[in-house]
Amino acid sequence: MSYVNYSVETLKNFCEDIFEKFGFTRREAEQITDVLLLADLYGVQSHGTQRLVRYHKSIMKGCVKTDAKPQIVFETPVSAVIDGNAAMGQLTSIFAMNKAIEKARNVGMAFVTVRNSNHYGIAGYYTKMACDQGLMAICVTNSESIMVHTNSKQAILGSNPIAFAMPAEPYPFWFDAATTVIPKGKLEVYHKADKALHDGWATDETGKECHNAEQVLACIDGKKGVGGILPVGGISEASGSHKGYGYSMICELLCSITSGGATSNHHVRKPGQSAGTCHAFIVIDPKIFGDAEKIKAHLSTFLQELRDAKRADESVPIYTHGEKEMYAKEKHLREGIDVDVSTVLEMVNICRDLGIDSKKYLGDVDLSNAKETTYKV
Amino acid sequence: MSYVNYSVETLKNFCEDIFEKFGFTRREAEQITDVLLLADLYGVQSHGTQRLVRYHKSIMKGCVKTDAKPQIVFETPVSAVIDGNAAMGQLTSIFAMNKAIEKARNVGMAFVTVRNSNHYGIAGYYTKMACDQGLMAICVTNSESIMVHTNSKQAILGSNPIAFAMPAEPYPFWFDAATTVIPKGKLEVYHKADKALHDGWATDETGKECHNAEQVLACIDGKKGVGGILPVGGISEASGSHKGYGYSMICELLCSITSGGATSNHHVRKPGQSAGTCHAFIVIDPKIFGDAEKIKAHLSTFLQELRDAKRADESVPIYTHGEKEMYAKEKHLREGIDVDVSTVLEMVNICRDLGIDSKKYLGDVDLSNAKETTYKV
Repeated sequence: MSYVNYSVETLKNFCEDIFEKFGFTRREAEQITDVLLLADLYGVQSHGTQRLVRYHKSIMKGCVKTDAKPQIVFETPVSAVIDGNAAMGQLTSIFAMNKAIEKARNVGMAFVTVRNSNHYGIAGYYTKMACDQGLMAICVTNSESIMVHTNSKQAILGSNPIAFAMPAEPYPFWFDAATTVIPKGKLEVYHKADKALHDGWATDETGKECHNAEQVLACIDGKKGVGGILPVGGISEASGSHKGYGYSMICELLCSITSGGATSNHHVRKPGQSAGTCHAFIVIDPKIFGDAEKIKAHLSTFLQELRDAKRADESVPIYTHGEKEMYAKEKHLREGIDVDVSTVLEMVNICRDLGIDSKKYLGDVDLSNAKETTYKV
Repeated sequence: MSYVNYSVETLKNFCEDIFEKFGFTRREAEQITDVLLLADLYGVQSHGTQRLVRYHKSIMKGCVKTDAKPQIVFETPVSAVIDGNAAMGQLTSIFAMNKAIEKARNVGMAFVTVRNSNHYGIAGYYTKMACDQGLMAICVTNSESIMVHTNSKQAILGSNPIAFAMPAEPYPFWFDAATTVIPKGKLEVYHKADKALHDGWATDETGKECHNAEQVLACIDGKKGVGGILPVGGISEASGSHKGYGYSMICELLCSITSGGATSNHHVRKPGQSAGTCHAFIVIDPKIFGDAEKIKAHLSTFLQELRDAKRADESVPIYTHGEKEMYAKEKHLREGIDVDVSTVLEMVNICRDLGIDSKKYLGDVDLSNAKETTYKV
């Protein structure tokens, strides 16, 4: 694949202007861009600027409403239930996390749950918001059905990521992972490379283990309802399948069940309707356990012990969660971000649709290697 | 292995009398027994009455102090930090969970964290306490170091179970699982049966994948510090090792870090000292999201959809978490509990040490098949 390298500043300006053109206010465009760019900076490209085209599509179809505002429908001093009203997932989620932070500052801990939202980017963006302010946070979201749970061939649960962050030095503990064994993006990578899927990754429509990425993708993209990705822990209880299934359930219970929203299997894909995505934001102020600085120091020491553990292979470092992302961020701020040419072509197409001069942002790039996508608004 | 079948009532009377003889009050003996018996009823024998001998040992060595009382050392309306003072883990944990329930009833949600405790049985006992009262609950504990984290050959993290429960009909969602791919007990079963361990279960002292149960047990029991059980997700990031490692970290952060207690790698095994075990108890009243009955009905519907999903194999049912335990409980109440003869022999030995007539409880059983354990107080 060919890539074009852009500075973070270039992508930031581009995305902000585009989202403003989509119909958001400048402030909203900045907020959405900030979520997408963090994903690119952390090396989670599937959730970064390359997703622009999918958001555009959702907006054009009326699934994401640019003028909608999230609304608190139930509230206590420690909680809020928010109806996303089909607004942009990132905007609803920043609002929800700020509400959770405010409540946690007042009462010590808080739980804000959201229904009728849309895709919100990386879960870890929101835990980072709290963590940057010295707070512990948990954030989860459900998604379209993609996981075949233990002994099932039907996909009911979503990729259902769980994110958790807690302040530490020199970097926080920052965990953000789907409860499926792999993300859907990995199927696409293996498909393009014509590589066989590993054991314990996916099943076909009959519920049998499947090593053919194309076949699994056909199940998911074809909305067959059967076949999909396995939970972390694989296909059998012997390898812990029921555990990954359980973590995915915890995610689902925290967001869709508490909010009275759509569970992953009831998400919709209809023009004019939000996906029905649900999120949850839990914030805990470490001060409720005493001296927050002592707790931070205790965690920092423990993380260092984990990194300093005896290595299985001397040449392979041991990481704590969030460490790789810190390195990726430093690298990308220094060296820019590589965007594959097919994504650049999509960005150029969006500019054309919006009547914007793409060269102003993206330069005069050679797109002859770009794969024309089937993308049509 | 030979088994002796006892009614639940017999085991209950036996354990209560024994724990009273150990030095606990009648009420305390009843509480401890209730935790152990739930494990037996649910089919988690490793944490049931067969653990009696280990608790006896801990008491005789002064690691568990029968006269100690847990003590609140820091408190807010939503939280408490408790010093277990080396009391019996079950007693401290029932106290802590009751405190969390009381606070959650008052404020909507609560987080109670515990340090300087001891082994507390199954985590799911405590989430059940809250769930039986219509509340959501999370409970975690750390343990002796047993997990080799991703790219490490050193065991730092514990088995670190996460339990989660939420009310539903006809049975609640009740999840309780170690974040290691298998429990240590499974190594023992495979060792006795002379079977090769599965891929992704364990490493030897060099950090290489290991299929020899005896070798892994030698690492753990020999306190070598290297080699051990892998996280759910196995040995490599490709199978999600970093995810299981992450869940184990979340457990550790919630209990040992918030309580200022010992992380799993700093647990002690010294006469006269508590293990240093830490626990956390988080309770959420569904009323903070509105109508608790509607939320329960929403979850009940969703759980039924999961159980009714299309099966991968028509002959293998799909379960939701806690369902198998409900069936096991019904069976054991009806048919009694099978205790292996080696455990019965240990129980007889304890009676002898305490000057109790074991036949009064356990009958006149043939113990010729029992393996004499190396157990010495």
